Amino acid sequence: MADLDSLAGLSPAELEAHWMPFTGNRHFKSDPRLFVAAEGMHYTTADGRSVLDAFSGLWCSNLGHGRKEIADAVASQLTGLDYSPAFQFGHPTAFKLAKRLADMAPGDLNRVFFCNSGSEAADTALKIARAYWRAKGRPEKIRLVGRAQGYHGVNFGGISVGGMVGNRKTFGPALDVDHLPHTLLPENAFSRGLPEHGGEAMANRLLDIINLQGAENIAAVMIEPFAGSAGVILPPKGYLKKLRELCTAHDILLIFDEVITGFGRTGSAFAAQEFDVQPDIITTAKGITNGAIPMGAVFASDTIYETFMQGPEHIPELAHGYTYSAHPVACAAAMATLDIYQDEKLFNRVREMAPYFEEALHSLGSESHVVDIRNYGLAGAIQLESRPGEPGKRAMEVVLEAYRRGILLRWTGDTIAVAPPFIIERNQVTQIAETLRDILQEVQ
Amino acid sequence: MADLDSLAGLSPAELEAHWMPFTGNRHFKSDPRLFVAAEGMHYTTADGRSVLDAFSGLWCSNLGHGRKEIADAVASQLTGLDYSPAFQFGHPTAFKLAKRLADMAPGDLNRVFFCNSGSEAADTALKIARAYWRAKGRPEKIRLVGRAQGYHGVNFGGISVGGMVGNRKTFGPALDVDHLPHTLLPENAFSRGLPEHGGEAMANRLLDIINLQGAENIAAVMIEPFAGSAGVILPPKGYLKKLRELCTAHDILLIFDEVITGFGRTGSAFAAQEFDVQPDIITTAKGITNGAIPMGAVFASDTIYETFMQGPEHIPELAHGYTYSAHPVACAAAMATLDIYQDEKLFNRVREMAPYFEEALHSLGSESHVVDIRNYGLAGAIQLESRPGEPGKRAMEVVLEAYRRGILLRWTGDTIAVAPPFIIERNQVTQIAETLRDILQEVQ
Repeated sequence: MADLDSLAGLSPAELEAHWMPFTGNRHFKSDPRLFVAAEGMHYTTADGRSVLDAFSGLWCSNLGHGRKEIADAVASQLTGLDYSPAFQFGHPTAFKLAKRLADMAPGDLNRVFFCNSGSEAADTALKIARAYWRAKGRPEKIRLVGRAQGYHGVNFGGISVGGMVGNRKTFGPALDVDHLPHTLLPENAFSRGLPEHGGEAMANRLLDIINLQGAENIAAVMIEPFAGSAGVILPPKGYLKKLRELCTAHDILLIFDEVITGFGRTGSAFAAQEFDVQPDIITTAKGITNGAIPMGAVFASDTIYETFMQGPEHIPELAHGYTYSAHPVACAAAMATLDIYQDEKLFNRVREMAPYFEEALHSLGSESHVVDIRNYGLAGAIQLESRPGEPGKRAMEVVLEAYRRGILLRWTGDTIAVAPPFIIERNQVTQIAETLRDILQEVQ
Repeated sequence: MADLDSLAGLSPAELEAHWMPFTGNRHFKSDPRLFVAAEGMHYTTADGRSVLDAFSGLWCSNLGHGRKEIADAVASQLTGLDYSPAFQFGHPTAFKLAKRLADMAPGDLNRVFFCNSGSEAADTALKIARAYWRAKGRPEKIRLVGRAQGYHGVNFGGISVGGMVGNRKTFGPALDVDHLPHTLLPENAFSRGLPEHGGEAMANRLLDIINLQGAENIAAVMIEPFAGSAGVILPPKGYLKKLRELCTAHDILLIFDEVITGFGRTGSAFAAQEFDVQPDIITTAKGITNGAIPMGAVFASDTIYETFMQGPEHIPELAHGYTYSAHPVACAAAMATLDIYQDEKLFNRVREMAPYFEEALHSLGSESHVVDIRNYGLAGAIQLESRPGEPGKRAMEVVLEAYRRGILLRWTGDTIAVAPPFIIERNQVTQIAETLRDILQEVQ
């Protein structure tokens, strides 16, 4: 049981009232892990300890915490225009932000649709893809293709296209989706950056699905440029380009879920640019506001948008939207966040820090239980051998011990994921690696 | 085309970059309706006009605009703890807010799951319902029942259970759902408050679905206590109680979508209390933060929660959650919002103002084109006869003209919806009715 210090004055009834997301609730409530403050690279826990944020909160606080510019922009927005109706009315910041995002986006992805999360961005993208083909006069193109180990949030569209069994298996039938295999190949273990082997062959697996279902029935392929939530599973060289070629050849839209890779995690604004592959739609969230205010955004090509702009003038061309779409406070937070990315040249900083980060992670390659290490930009994963009969337990123990020793990480299955804010310093990268080394040498 | 004043300095490229939700984009961009500020009951437009907010933004700004207490709470939270990882970690305000909400909720709905919108609350509730029966050892109970004209947001779960054809028809197959008929009966036209006729008979239509699919296959019925987005379609007397009886008798969960009715719109905290019917799950959003920060919340019964608390201790009992679940900034905004509801006794104020609001709306009953008027609490709808071949056009023209004359309303089909902030004064209610009267006497 928790000692009183760690409870931040919470009563048992308060602890019980919150059904926590993706959390072992009973385990948590007997030993709560509570944050009470955050500043720069560090959290402060309820029992007064400082914890280095090596996970950007949850892949989102790319600038670190407590950014005054964002707080000021939000405060000012709340005083001026706290909410603006999203449907049939607008406010100026939404348009300015949309244009600014379009300018950052690759190619002709010049149209921005706002929502509240990466999960909503996924369902939005899938709806746009299906309705696009219908608007083009090809209503039979409704099938969707996802990928094993993919993560596209937790709404019903997202879990259908997603490929993590734990997130799918208890929720019954949803959308009928085909799945590509994931690209975690044994021959690529301990690759640095993009793996060498199997790119074209793995992409060609799309042909199996096309041969099974008929390209004329397929609306879109949705994948993460690299799979984040499943533990930084990278695309082998040539994979994404080949997938793009096949989609183009068969009139299938290619959707990149850049909720994790977007806004600098790879060293470019978007992974599409980093890997030089142009999707038709990109979904984003997280880094768009530094995680400070919930927001998601979907980028669509001019071609897609213009296809919708047909039919009667006064009727919504896309019957889709959220009360909080383009929320003025989220827009203000995003504008301030983009300013900081730009002013502090933080995407470049990711590029500069990445080799050092890579070196530090791979220095753990010979430690006990380590079966793979993967990295790109400021995203990394250390995969451990699962303990027999207890999948996920070993990585969980390492991450919880790291938290006790002052480092916030995340586990997914038996993989430890690392994704620090872009402002991380070299000595903090070293601290992460050395703490993990110590724990790996002690853990069963 | 818009004159320059109305553009708030936006360039054509900025106007084009934002793909607006549920909006006729081309029409909007040739004649933008932009808000630049909001205070109390009023918006200020880009061309400097004051517009009375008769729609609480979009059913959400129940307290009116620019509430300093909310802005202060948000600013303080952003400086202290701007983001806290949602999975396997927590922060104190999330638990305090959950307990406070549980105390407001009807009966044993003591467990609160946080998300970012009413749309996400809907998908969350449906996932909980299906996974609940699976956890109970009845995995065959997966079918879902919605209602015609129902609105449960726009993610794939929500549009499946939802019943508005325009929101469903272009997005292809989703979840397999049966639908109850709506309760808009001709014999109840011009009812004040809950209609008299057909309650039990309409609820009994659930038996048709049970007879068709088998209760043993049905997980849940999801409805709004009154349908908001479709134009305030009220449940005839006895309807909700009968539906509850049937669900209980057949082991079917009853989910109330209170995204619109929750947080005081009916005069009670929740419509479940107002209508004295206990659901198993309630979904909420909007009024929870006064619309100032995106947030949704799902309330589940102790029974449901405890059913999930089985199996291995360290594994998430519910494999579901959002990066921004229980976002500290949203929690802070919600705490401040609940304070204001309480301190200013605003749910009582709704109850006090409702008869005056009802009288004002129904005074329009003899105006041209008016075929029905409906109201409950501070929600009202004036339904117009559709112009032949132009469904929705007449109500749209009325609402756009009202905007020009300084009143924000909303149209849905040929229904004009009214849902003012709870702080509205009697003379403002009169202003809404008299402006509508003038327009109705002029409109074709």
